[in-house]
Amino acid sequence: MSGDDSRADRFSAATEDPLDAAMRRAIAASEQVRGTTSPNPPVGCVILDADGRVVGTGATQPPGGPHAEVVALRAAGARAAGGTAVVTLEPCVHTGRTGPCADALRQAGVARVVHAVADPTARAAGGAAALRAAGIEVRDGLLAEEVSRGPLRAWLHFARTGRPHVTWKYAATLDGRSAAADGTSQWISSADSRAEVHRVRERMDAILVGTGTVAADDPHLTARDAGGELTRRRPLRVVVGDRDIAADARVLDSAAETIRVPGGPPSSVLDALADRGAVDVLLEGGPRLAGAFLEAGCIDRILAYIAPSLLGSGPAALGDAGVASLSQAWRLRIEETTMSGVDLRISAVPTW
Amino acid sequence: MSGDDSRADRFSAATEDPLDAAMRRAIAASEQVRGTTSPNPPVGCVILDADGRVVGTGATQPPGGPHAEVVALRAAGARAAGGTAVVTLEPCVHTGRTGPCADALRQAGVARVVHAVADPTARAAGGAAALRAAGIEVRDGLLAEEVSRGPLRAWLHFARTGRPHVTWKYAATLDGRSAAADGTSQWISSADSRAEVHRVRERMDAILVGTGTVAADDPHLTARDAGGELTRRRPLRVVVGDRDIAADARVLDSAAETIRVPGGPPSSVLDALADRGAVDVLLEGGPRLAGAFLEAGCIDRILAYIAPSLLGSGPAALGDAGVASLSQAWRLRIEETTMSGVDLRISAVPTW
Ligand SMILES: NC(=O)c1ccc[n+]([C@@H]2O[C@H](COP(=O)([O-])OP(=O)(O)OC[C@H]3O[C@@H](n4cnc5c(N)ncnc54)[C@H](OP(=O)(O)O)[C@@H]3O)[C@@H](O)[C@H]2O)c1
Ligand SMILES: NC(=O)c1ccc[n+]([C@@H]2O[C@H](COP(=O)([O-])OP(=O)(O)OC[C@H]3O[C@@H](n4cnc5c(N)ncnc54)[C@H](OP(=O)(O)O)[C@@H]3O)[C@@H](O)[C@H]2O)c1
Repeated sequence: MSGDDSRADRFSAATEDPLDAAMRRAIAASEQVRGTTSPNPPVGCVILDADGRVVGTGATQPPGGPHAEVVALRAAGARAAGGTAVVTLEPCVHTGRTGPCADALRQAGVARVVHAVADPTARAAGGAAALRAAGIEVRDGLLAEEVSRGPLRAWLHFARTGRPHVTWKYAATLDGRSAAADGTSQWISSADSRAEVHRVRERMDAILVGTGTVAADDPHLTARDAGGELTRRRPLRVVVGDRDIAADARVLDSAAETIRVPGGPPSSVLDALADRGAVDVLLEGGPRLAGAFLEAGCIDRILAYIAPSLLGSGPAALGDAGVASLSQAWRLRIEETTMSGVDLRISAVPTW
Repeated sequence: MSGDDSRADRFSAATEDPLDAAMRRAIAASEQVRGTTSPNPPVGCVILDADGRVVGTGATQPPGGPHAEVVALRAAGARAAGGTAVVTLEPCVHTGRTGPCADALRQAGVARVVHAVADPTARAAGGAAALRAAGIEVRDGLLAEEVSRGPLRAWLHFARTGRPHVTWKYAATLDGRSAAADGTSQWISSADSRAEVHRVRERMDAILVGTGTVAADDPHLTARDAGGELTRRRPLRVVVGDRDIAADARVLDSAAETIRVPGGPPSSVLDALADRGAVDVLLEGGPRLAGAFLEAGCIDRILAYIAPSLLGSGPAALGDAGVASLSQAWRLRIEETTMSGVDLRISAVPTW
C-alpha cells in the first residue's frame, strides 16, 4: 500500500463518495420532519449543482405543503440546472395537493436523480420511468437499507400493508418484570432511557395504551424536551378498552389530543388509527394489550429498555400472547443493542 | 502529526509494548489452565531474556505441581539470567507443596519482575518485597484490570472472602421466561449458546443446581466438546436440596463426580464447596435456588443468555429474591453485551 493510499484510508470520512454524503444529508433532513408528515412519507432531498456542490436541501412539509424535492429545488434555484437530485424516495408522479415532483425536477433541468428506495404505492410510483422518459439519468438503491430501516420504515410498512407500523416499547428488569411485587414501577428504567423515550414519542403519530395502564399509572403520554416543556409536535394519545377512566386522568388534559378506541381485535384498533392518518404508532403497553397485539401479529418492532436489575417477583412486562408451548414462541431477530445510560436498549424485529 | 507518527498508529498492534505483549501471553497461558488449579490460582508467566525475547512460558500446574513461574523458568533455562519475568500474580514467598517462586526467580538471576495484581493472601504475599530485598526490580499493576476481571477473578474473590465465586448462568426469553406455559424449555437458547456453556462449564470447579431442576429437566451437567465427547476436565456436579432424586438421574452417572448438599442457607452451601477446594462455581438454577442465592448476596456475576423470542406466559427465570418494592431491587452493572449466535449474552455484576 502506498503512502497516498494510507492517507486516503485515514481520511476516509473526508473523501466519502459525494453521492453517499448527499444521501446521508438527505436522510438527516428527513429525520427532522419525522412525525410531521403522515400520511405522507418523511422524505429528504439534496440538490447538487453540476460541480457536485450542495445547493439545496429539503424535507417533506406537513400535509398540503410542498414535498422534499420542491423545497430543495426552491433553495437551489437556477443552480439545479445540470445538477443531481439525491432523494430518499423515488420522486412521485401523481398530482395530489402539490404538483408531481418528477415534473418539478424536469422543469428545474436536473440531469440526474439518485434515490434510495422505490415508491411501492401504485398511485405515486412510476417517477423513475417518467424521469427517464424525460431524458434524465436515474439511479436507485443508494443507501436503500439505511433508509428503509430508518426514516421510511413505518411509511413503507403502511404503504405495503395499509396498516400503521407498530413499535412496542417497554421497560423491564433483566428478569422481565415491569413492576415490583407491591406494584411500584417508577422508575424501572434510567433517566437517560426515559428522556430518550420522549424523543421517540415526539416522532410518532400516535401513542397507544390500554385502560389498565391508565388506571394503574395515570401516564401523561406526552413528549417533553430536556427542560420539561412540551415539544412542538404533539402525537395523538390513544386509550384502548371499554372501561371508564377517571375524568381527571392526566391523559385527558389539553396537552395533546386524546381519543378512546373500544376494545377489540388489534387490527380494528389499527384500522381506526389509519383512518386518522396515523402511520407510525408507539404501543406503550401494558402487558395485556401488548400480548394481544403480539398474538395478532400487529407488532412490527420491539424497543426494549432493560434495566440492570433483578426483582424475582412482580408483574411481567408481557402478558398472554397465545403461546402454549416453546415451539410456538414469537421469534425475533435482534437488530441492535446499545446502552442507554446504564440500561440496555434492544431493538428487535419479528421473523414471522 | 508527522508521517512517522501516523505510521506508528496504523501499526500499533505490531509495535505494542513488549511488556504488554508478554503479559497478554501470560494471560492466555493462564486461561489454558483455568479449572485445573483450584484451590491455587490459575497464574500465567512469561520469561523474557535480557534482549526482551520470549524464552519461556508457563502456567500453574494442578495442586502439588509447579507454579507458573517455575514452569516458565524451566523452559527458559539459562536464558532467564538478566531477563524479565512477566507474571499475572505477585510471585509467592511461602513454601507449600512447591518452593517459593520468589526464590526460584532470584536463583535464575532474573533482573526484573513485572506482575499484574498483588497477592491478597497473608500467607503468600510479600513476594514483591522479598524480590526487591534481593535487588530485583519489581513493577506491579500491568494490565491489572484485565487480569483481575479475567483469569484471576474467582480466585481473588475467594482469597478476599473465603467463599467461592458464584456465576449465575441462565437462559431466558427476552420477556424473562425460562420455559413455556406447558413446561417445555428445550431449547430456549441457541445451539451456539449451548455450546458456549459447555466451554464455560469446563473451566469451573463445580456446577450447582437445585433438586427442582434435576426433577424437571434431568440435566447431565457435564462439559462436552463440539464432538459431544466429555472434556478432560470434569467439574464437580452438586445437587442442592433435601428431596430424593431419581436413582437413574443423569447427574448421578459416572461421567463426573456428583455430591449432594442439603438445603440450607446459600452461605453454608458455599462453605461446603470451599471445603472441597472449589473456588469458581457455576450456578445453573433453577429459579428458586437462584433467588435464594441472590437474596443471600451469594451471586458474584450473572451470565444471561437471552433468546430473541417472546412467550408471554410460563415460569420466570428468577424466583423470589426477597424483593417487595422497586427500591429493594438487586442492582447490577452490565459489564459486557455480545451476541452468541442469535442470542444476546449479557455479563453483569452486582453493584451492592
Ligand atoms: N413496563 C412497562 O413498559 C409498562 C408499560 C405500560 C404498563 N405497564 C404496567 O402494566 C400494568 C397494567 O397492565 P394491564 O395489562 O392491565 O394494562 P393494559 O394492557 O394497558 O390494559 C389492558 C386493557 O386493555 C384493553 N384492551 C383493548 N383491546 C384489548 C385486547 N385486544 N386484548 C386485551 N385487552 C385489550 C382492555 O380494556 P377494557 O377492560 O377496558 O376493555 C384491557 O383490560 C400496570 O401495572 C403498568 O404499570 C408497564
Ligand atoms: N432457564 C434456565 O436457565 C433454567 C435453569 C435451571 C432450571 N430451570 C427450570 O427451573 C425449573 C425448576 O425450578 P425450581 O425453582 O423448582 O428448581 P431449583 O431452584 O433447581 O430447585 C429448588 C430446590 O432447591 C433446593 N434448595 C436448596 N437450598 C435452597 C434454598 N436456600 N432456597 C430454596 N431452595 C433451596 C430445594 O430443594 P428441596 O425441596 O429438595 O429441599 C428447592 O426445592 C425447571 O422447570 C427448569 O426447567 C431453568
